[in-house]
Amino acid sequence: MPDLLAAIAGVGADPRRGGYSRHGFDRADLELRAWFVEEAERRGLAVRTDRNGNVWAWWGTPGPDAVVTGSHLDSVPGGGAFDGPLGVVSALLAVDSLRARGFTPTRPLAVVVFAEEEGGRFGVPCLGSRLLAGTIDPDAARRLHDPDGVTLAEAVTEAGLDASRLGRDDVALGLIGTFVELHVEQGRGLVDLDAPVAVAGSILAHGRWRFRFTGEGNHAGATLIGDRRDPMLPASALVLAARKAAAGVDGARATVGRLTPNPGGTNVIASTVDVWLDARADDTARTRAVVDEITAAAHDAATDEGCAVTVTEESYGDTVHFDPALRDRLAGSLGGVPVLATGAGHDAGILAARVPTAMLFVRNPTGVSHAPAEHAEPDDCAAGVEALAAVLAELAG
Amino acid sequence: MPDLLAAIAGVGADPRRGGYSRHGFDRADLELRAWFVEEAERRGLAVRTDRNGNVWAWWGTPGPDAVVTGSHLDSVPGGGAFDGPLGVVSALLAVDSLRARGFTPTRPLAVVVFAEEEGGRFGVPCLGSRLLAGTIDPDAARRLHDPDGVTLAEAVTEAGLDASRLGRDDVALGLIGTFVELHVEQGRGLVDLDAPVAVAGSILAHGRWRFRFTGEGNHAGATLIGDRRDPMLPASALVLAARKAAAGVDGARATVGRLTPNPGGTNVIASTVDVWLDARADDTARTRAVVDEITAAAHDAATDEGCAVTVTEESYGDTVHFDPALRDRLAGSLGGVPVLATGAGHDAGILAARVPTAMLFVRNPTGVSHAPAEHAEPDDCAAGVEALAAVLAELAG
Repeated sequence: MPDLLAAIAGVGADPRRGGYSRHGFDRADLELRAWFVEEAERRGLAVRTDRNGNVWAWWGTPGPDAVVTGSHLDSVPGGGAFDGPLGVVSALLAVDSLRARGFTPTRPLAVVVFAEEEGGRFGVPCLGSRLLAGTIDPDAARRLHDPDGVTLAEAVTEAGLDASRLGRDDVALGLIGTFVELHVEQGRGLVDLDAPVAVAGSILAHGRWRFRFTGEGNHAGATLIGDRRDPMLPASALVLAARKAAAGVDGARATVGRLTPNPGGTNVIASTVDVWLDARADDTARTRAVVDEITAAAHDAATDEGCAVTVTEESYGDTVHFDPALRDRLAGSLGGVPVLATGAGHDAGILAARVPTAMLFVRNPTGVSHAPAEHAEPDDCAAGVEALAAVLAELAG
Repeated sequence: MPDLLAAIAGVGADPRRGGYSRHGFDRADLELRAWFVEEAERRGLAVRTDRNGNVWAWWGTPGPDAVVTGSHLDSVPGGGAFDGPLGVVSALLAVDSLRARGFTPTRPLAVVVFAEEEGGRFGVPCLGSRLLAGTIDPDAARRLHDPDGVTLAEAVTEAGLDASRLGRDDVALGLIGTFVELHVEQGRGLVDLDAPVAVAGSILAHGRWRFRFTGEGNHAGATLIGDRRDPMLPASALVLAARKAAAGVDGARATVGRLTPNPGGTNVIASTVDVWLDARADDTARTRAVVDEITAAAHDAATDEGCAVTVTEESYGDTVHFDPALRDRLAGSLGGVPVLATGAGHDAGILAARVPTAMLFVRNPTGVSHAPAEHAEPDDCAAGVEALAAVLAELAG
């Protein structure tokens, strides 16, 4: 682990879940943002926070056709140490490396930290980059709320932003000439290939859907089985249907990792159950087919139990194919490193619709991500920094 | 609703779940305890808190062969206004009624508030009465913890008790000659019988079991379906198996109202899932048969997914048959009110193993309990107070 990553190893540690819980604009996230500002300013980079809470650190005068690199500092609940922070830390270390070799960029160069990439607090992944790129309605975004009912508008206001100014930011977006995000690999592609670094090829189509099942809350002991309308039944049927539907479509994934019975008492039949479905596949048609099959099963199971069900699409993004010319140029300049597809979403996937964008992956020996077992060896992290520095020199040299 | 119940209508209201969340020794519970002390002292009753955090208010000098009535003030998460508080309020109002008619008890008389009856915070129902009666190991009880990791020992210490003195209290128990608990009915027995008040006959055998499924936490997008060990799959299979098992045994109930995936992120395959099973039936043999069938299904489903499962019995209580002589005496003195069985557990069910114990039920027009729809009409509440006063006069006259 790079020293710079070790420096934040204590921030947002989650003793209950294990790993880290760092969510957009919460205490841990604000501490990480302050740490980033300090590290950037220590390097003489000029720090600016944009209208959507993304933090930019500029080497040289901000201007158009900039080469921008970075990632995010927030995590999933109980996440690993590398997903996000490795890209930010590697960007700062790449700047150090370029300076040490006397490199002077001919294009403006910036390191960016995107806000709430995981959607761990407000539900929508890549929230900062979506707002920047204008792919989410700012009114809808302002109304997003965390599990305690705090809205995004309230959270950003508390963090010192003007909530009325959230939304598409053509000024900030217009400065990006090329975006490159370095990220720990989420899978074992590089392990299997015995290589430390890869370039990204594509990202699966993916989205999030919230199913709310409504039955009748009642006493777990006093209510006869025949009198029940228990929303836990169709909620459980959905979990099993998701597995079945995804298994039936090549390459598809469907996951329920979050399910909340309300009120959630052991001796209480739930009145409502919220189930979040994460579904992904190679393209929109396949993704929709999986979700449609799951939705039909959810409706059937709800009807069987006398429950109602509503479905809300919380986010959706089509398949991302990263700029082929840029991808091939970078893979070549790095000596022919592999090109890997991924099932994981990234801010780079959002920006790819607007500007030439690329990603670098760093080998993860466990293949695990979004969990404390996520890992990258120090030598591979160093190889990632050098690859990123080489890419920045190639682009901004 | 009696005025005295309306007085606490604002305490512990839960805007997120609806209804009330008042759990043992939390802020709402402490506020309700203080309110009870004030109401008792206003009536000149002498208040004592026992070693286990149960609060006693004495009319006359505390002594043996006392007639004791009362219930609890805590709730399930998002519970109704009547389950518990109606019994406490009715006890105070019955004292008022007896005094108004110039009654003087010939036996000591006390109103008691039992701690953490619902187990909503520390998981074990009837915790205060179990500790008093010695039906739970005090060391095990001290180690019980709430979802934030606060132990019972810490919570009672914070509330001013000596945690080392938790446990069987023969002094307090030895004073109880007869215990009578009034409670809102949890079901529609009295609605169907068109009567406002009943006497309890029996309580189902019942217990709580926690299943922990352990798989492998990983990324919801990057992990192929074939590579998963997702504990949500066997957890969901358990929910469906519980319904099937209970439906197969006459009168049995099995419920999952609480299920917690860890870490609980939308884009995260859970690493563990905790599932709480509440199961009840006419007797221990039937209850065990239901739980055994569910446990076998849970093991099979866990094996299919490559997950591990552990099962912990958090509480168990055999069928309670209330003292038949006392039951018939009270039903008779109340003019032949009905005798009703219940599937709900009560502190009276714990005390019934130690002292002659009876219960009165007050009609609930919705039949719903452990939910905001729980209700009792003012006239029925008044009928309950008068029935309780008559019972106390019968026993202590």
